[in-house]
Amino acid sequence: MKRKGILFVISGPSGVGKGTIREALLEKISDIEVSISATTRPPRPGEVHGKDYFFLSGEEFKKMIAEDKFLEWANVYQNFYGTPRDFVIKNLEQGKDVLLEIDIQGAMQVKNKMPEGVFIFIYPPDIQTLAERLCNRGKDSKESIERRLAACAEELRHVKYYDYVVVNDELEWAVKKTEAIIIAERCKIKNIELEVV
Amino acid sequence: MKRKGILFVISGPSGVGKGTIREALLEKISDIEVSISATTRPPRPGEVHGKDYFFLSGEEFKKMIAEDKFLEWANVYQNFYGTPRDFVIKNLEQGKDVLLEIDIQGAMQVKNKMPEGVFIFIYPPDIQTLAERLCNRGKDSKESIERRLAACAEELRHVKYYDYVVVNDELEWAVKKTEAIIIAERCKIKNIELEVV
Repeated sequence: MKRKGILFVISGPSGVGKGTIREALLEKISDIEVSISATTRPPRPGEVHGKDYFFLSGEEFKKMIAEDKFLEWANVYQNFYGTPRDFVIKNLEQGKDVLLEIDIQGAMQVKNKMPEGVFIFIYPPDIQTLAERLCNRGKDSKESIERRLAACAEELRHVKYYDYVVVNDELEWAVKKTEAIIIAERCKIKNIELEVV
Repeated sequence: MKRKGILFVISGPSGVGKGTIREALLEKISDIEVSISATTRPPRPGEVHGKDYFFLSGEEFKKMIAEDKFLEWANVYQNFYGTPRDFVIKNLEQGKDVLLEIDIQGAMQVKNKMPEGVFIFIYPPDIQTLAERLCNRGKDSKESIERRLAACAEELRHVKYYDYVVVNDELEWAVKKTEAIIIAERCKIKNIELEVV
């Protein structure tokens, strides 16, 4: 029986470092397809269309919603975010693993539709560290940071719906744990093709 | 809630390299307790009592059976093998992970009693390689090797009762996969203690 691909969902609160972990992970694991989200928010400096996100207009985004072309989508802080469905489904059916990095709301929608996915929660070592990270990256306004921290405590409760928790107390170790989860899942009996029997 | 220890069972056919993988694994993972089997077979050159096995007399072994002191035991090729129960249970209750390397018959008994354990099957890349390994290690007679190979094909069918399969086609990679399984299992939501929520 042909192996089906595995969907790995890396998720967690804003500022927890899930993007950094994803990047470091891709240095170690090459045989995985990365799902690229669509968004209507403006690109941040350095972000590239088709690499970091598909940057869409509001009209374009709504058309895709109407055509049911998202695996999940949400309106977060006045911007739309979504995961194009076709890319994920096509790769999994071809036996290729897919890596999806999304926020918690998105992950919960994906879990609803694809409970067979592997859901990894990147967890802050403590709330204080998370606040410092959000402040230091300088991408967000003070109000935005406060709003996100308040949401964060609530968001952390969703950890119970995930399969794995990676506490991001030390980046290298967090990356190693996430890599280990991918390697281990690929060794699960249901995900392996054996040559002998 | 205090974390309970995880029982990791490394198993597979004779000559597949599970002992070598265990040794290499212990170089990388130190915070795990290694269960030592008891046996009535004579020590092979270099084997140490209390490190490789507890070498017991037939009388001593039967006394422990009668006192229900084994998690599993078996009579294999005229020799008795068993896993002392107290060591495993005590460590798990103290929150310590335990590593148990046993043959397939033993693993099946342990799974029966402790289905919550993590069962890892070390799998040969092919039967020919397994035959060569059994011949080259020079520990076994030709008859013993033939008998074991015949049993091997039958044994491989038990792979379906395991959680993970590690194909031992390349030692370093097999060790990395086994290590990944241990790291990943420790990240599972049921096995982790979170500091924030």
